[in-house]
Amino acid sequence: MTQPDFVAIDWGTSSFRLWVIGSGGKVLAQESGPFGMQTLSPVEYPAMLERLLSSLAINTNIPVIICGMAGARGGWIEAPYVTNTQPLHEVYESAVSLTSGRRRVWILPGVAQAQPANVMRGEETQILGFLKQTNSTDCVVCLPGTHSKWVRVANGRIKHFDTALTGEQFALLSQNSVLGAVCTGSDWDDAGFLAGLDRMRTQPAQFSTSLFEVRAGALLEDHNPGWSRAYLSGLLIGAELMATQSYWSDEITFLIGASELAQCYDQALTYLGGRVRRLNAETLTLAGLRAGFTALVQPAN
Amino acid sequence: MTQPDFVAIDWGTSSFRLWVIGSGGKVLAQESGPFGMQTLSPVEYPAMLERLLSSLAINTNIPVIICGMAGARGGWIEAPYVTNTQPLHEVYESAVSLTSGRRRVWILPGVAQAQPANVMRGEETQILGFLKQTNSTDCVVCLPGTHSKWVRVANGRIKHFDTALTGEQFALLSQNSVLGAVCTGSDWDDAGFLAGLDRMRTQPAQFSTSLFEVRAGALLEDHNPGWSRAYLSGLLIGAELMATQSYWSDEITFLIGASELAQCYDQALTYLGGRVRRLNAETLTLAGLRAGFTALVQPAN
Repeated sequence: MTQPDFVAIDWGTSSFRLWVIGSGGKVLAQESGPFGMQTLSPVEYPAMLERLLSSLAINTNIPVIICGMAGARGGWIEAPYVTNTQPLHEVYESAVSLTSGRRRVWILPGVAQAQPANVMRGEETQILGFLKQTNSTDCVVCLPGTHSKWVRVANGRIKHFDTALTGEQFALLSQNSVLGAVCTGSDWDDAGFLAGLDRMRTQPAQFSTSLFEVRAGALLEDHNPGWSRAYLSGLLIGAELMATQSYWSDEITFLIGASELAQCYDQALTYLGGRVRRLNAETLTLAGLRAGFTALVQPAN
Repeated sequence: MTQPDFVAIDWGTSSFRLWVIGSGGKVLAQESGPFGMQTLSPVEYPAMLERLLSSLAINTNIPVIICGMAGARGGWIEAPYVTNTQPLHEVYESAVSLTSGRRRVWILPGVAQAQPANVMRGEETQILGFLKQTNSTDCVVCLPGTHSKWVRVANGRIKHFDTALTGEQFALLSQNSVLGAVCTGSDWDDAGFLAGLDRMRTQPAQFSTSLFEVRAGALLEDHNPGWSRAYLSGLLIGAELMATQSYWSDEITFLIGASELAQCYDQALTYLGGRVRRLNAETLTLAGLRAGFTALVQPAN
């Protein structure tokens, strides 16, 4: 393998993804696994990292840049949040630097917002990658997922961000609640999804009293499980989009994330009158970590 | 034991409650157990009933009136819903009558609403009991619970009803979601509850983006688990009350239910400007089943 510039890692709650990056940002090798904050104690991170890097034959003089939950309390080492009132690139200046097995490692912090209280770890790196790639300082970004994030960036700072538990609520309600019995299987009926969106579009204040319609509709109107699952998803994504209307109503939403879920958000936003551009999450993570390498490591070389 | 008039049973999803009723509605004996629709197949109900009744030495000439999920599809025998456009007392006329072990048994149906789709089984009997007791035909009733019901009765008919999964969502989010780690224990801080209510009172459209504050607030503002649990409950009950404002804003809410939860609803409704009267659920269930006995059995004696 060509001598790499650095190793980039997105080290999360339940898993990690690692890329060996060469000159010009080329990915020379990659690795992933189910080891994250949930399964690793802080003292286990160094050995795990060295095992991975030696299996890939990465010399100890190659630095490592990490984003994600590895920097949370209970992760490898806590990298205290920067606040959203700081310029976002201060994420790099505030990285925690350490030596692990004679190797230089930087762990990037997340971003905290005081009012209302909110935190992110990992998404800020994708946003930094996006700003770097597009050379922009202002945008609206949506990162759909278990915990969806909506972020408004103005003048290179995160002006405001919100988190919605939409993905986690969908999993809990469709698998563990009374709605589960009518949401079985993996079928998906677009008509149900649009009906759920419409319910929230026309009566956004009725979210709390709309969920049970998933069950009652299946009993009284013979909706099949594919329709019911999609209706539940439409209600949840619809409620999120009505709550975040101030982000997307007047501006393009840059949608970052895994393809199937991002496709649902794309469809929903477009249906509700938003304008959407889709972006690849991995590309942006790598761009953000590469910008970290440039800011933190290259000046010292 | 004095010769009873009848046996009243509220036979639900996970349990049953049974009362032996004598003249004047006096409760001569009672029994309960963890056997309901979730654990019993349809053919097991008759033997279960006879075992209970013979252990209580109830003669086979004593009739039985049942409300609740025993009348659902998958329960003992399906008692098809009456619709909410019918006078509510037609629940009695539409009861399914059967002979089980030489005993007369009536199973009361639930009530279905077409638009939006909604169903109830059991609550209608408590409401019938309330109407009977107070000799009224118009009221607003709230039955807090795993699946809270809001019901407007006008002219002896259910004009409209709504269901909120508030209790089930609280259990799932506080025990099985990312919020669980900061909602541990059973402490309760009223200030957190009121803060959650206030969040929904002032920004009802933000429910979807408010849940994560439970976690972020604990991380950034050092809220203790009692505050966080109560805040989550305040958000969920607050969202339900904002969605059901048309029920309680101009009228007294008759609140039926278990004491601790009903106390939270009482506090929340009063805080938001509603007027509340508390009622005992068991008393009303018995009043509703006794009215069923009067309507169904006594004329034939």
